[in-house]
Amino acid sequence: MTKKQLIEQIRLKKSFLCIGLDVDLDKIPSHLKQLDDPIFEFNKQIIDATHHLTVAYKPNIAFYEAYGIKGWQSLEKTIKYLNNNYPEIFTIADAKRGDIGNTSTRYAKAFFDDLNFDSITVAPYMGRDSVEPFLAFEDKFTILLALTSNAGGLDFQTSEYNNEQLYQSVLKTSLNYKNSDNLMYVVGATRPDFFQKIRKIVPHHFLLVPGVGAQGGSLQEVCKYGLTDNIGLLVNSSRGIIYASNSEDFAEKATEKALELQKEMELLIKS
Amino acid sequence: MTKKQLIEQIRLKKSFLCIGLDVDLDKIPSHLKQLDDPIFEFNKQIIDATHHLTVAYKPNIAFYEAYGIKGWQSLEKTIKYLNNNYPEIFTIADAKRGDIGNTSTRYAKAFFDDLNFDSITVAPYMGRDSVEPFLAFEDKFTILLALTSNAGGLDFQTSEYNNEQLYQSVLKTSLNYKNSDNLMYVVGATRPDFFQKIRKIVPHHFLLVPGVGAQGGSLQEVCKYGLTDNIGLLVNSSRGIIYASNSEDFAEKATEKALELQKEMELLIKS
Repeated sequence: MTKKQLIEQIRLKKSFLCIGLDVDLDKIPSHLKQLDDPIFEFNKQIIDATHHLTVAYKPNIAFYEAYGIKGWQSLEKTIKYLNNNYPEIFTIADAKRGDIGNTSTRYAKAFFDDLNFDSITVAPYMGRDSVEPFLAFEDKFTILLALTSNAGGLDFQTSEYNNEQLYQSVLKTSLNYKNSDNLMYVVGATRPDFFQKIRKIVPHHFLLVPGVGAQGGSLQEVCKYGLTDNIGLLVNSSRGIIYASNSEDFAEKATEKALELQKEMELLIKS
Repeated sequence: MTKKQLIEQIRLKKSFLCIGLDVDLDKIPSHLKQLDDPIFEFNKQIIDATHHLTVAYKPNIAFYEAYGIKGWQSLEKTIKYLNNNYPEIFTIADAKRGDIGNTSTRYAKAFFDDLNFDSITVAPYMGRDSVEPFLAFEDKFTILLALTSNAGGLDFQTSEYNNEQLYQSVLKTSLNYKNSDNLMYVVGATRPDFFQKIRKIVPHHFLLVPGVGAQGGSLQEVCKYGLTDNIGLLVNSSRGIIYASNSEDFAEKATEKALELQKEMELLIKS
């Protein structure tokens, strides 16, 4: 998918919502558990119930890997279902991968070519030659961790050197990587004070923003400095939507929660 | 496995060699390719031919993930084969994972419980709550990326702040994490000048050292400051051993190459 197509989708749906498909067998409605592939069934129903309100889905790969080969089968079925039925939707493999050059290429092929995700999250610690193999793929996006939403995010990411914090250095340095147009960045919604500084370094790149809802981030505060002329934001909600109910009405309740966020986003886009 | 058991193995075999099982279908001998699971067959023969010379095996997970579900099956069979036939050998999932708390726990369970690896490599960028879920597992080890062997490793890891380089901060900070005894660190063999500084911060922790051989690191230079009274090193070689030949004699040649390194290590342990 191109960035242009993503922006068109956002304009069309008046939404920059991303829904996190972090599926935990202990949390899904019990009536699904007797099915052959409860994770895929859950995803399918969530997707069917929310696709008109969201522009992106983001399975966190850990949740699938946790179930071994069965988990990978659920992941494959989910991404195929998305690509076949809703090809206009942007897909994010939240994998936080990163390794030395030739090895990163293997991860990139696995997620971009074989699974046909539009994007993948990547950790920046290993630097240029761990990131560029992902950036080499055309019309695919590499979402670099910049400032994460968790408490430990402050262990290193905001450490200061040469008057610059590490996450700022990650943003600036990565702009010099080859094909840096294919970059997006993860910035937690729990860090609203940082968005102004971040937009000075990356005024146009998309930011993937987790941490709204369960983790306590505010959509309004994120948008204050995060929104650009081309929107430039994908705001993720996982638990708040997919586990809005754990009864048979889970998909319906997911629609309601997604609709609430979409309506809020529509107002923010207008203003 | 406990650290004591690992050290006993090293003393017994007079080797601190780790063999990287980074299996690329394009590089394995052609006679294996007609088999049902060429990757597992290749690993099995490499393991049978080298287990007496090495104390650890380290599959890089990217190489398996690259083949999707089939790749995961090969990985499962490989780790089961190791655990069933050579339970004394230390196993490392070179996965470079790391995510927010509850998600890291899922990765930890996948690799420690389900696959029964002894250890996993983890990226430090997300800080404490992304690492501690791995450290919570008893007799399992979390191998944190500190100073990696690739060129891009210098993009951020050696950036200086508060008179301290980032990798030093990672070492020092992580020592305060809960269960930090379960930590080991990745330090590239291509950075021999750093070992003295590193040993000042972590005098006793094991270092996993990739980059000897194909990447140009020197075993002698690594040992100069890296070796401790309890050895404290696992030095990895992948391509130099497993692809020593791509003919039918590949396992034999792997034995030869592993023996060369083991002999070199034996001398270094003595001196």
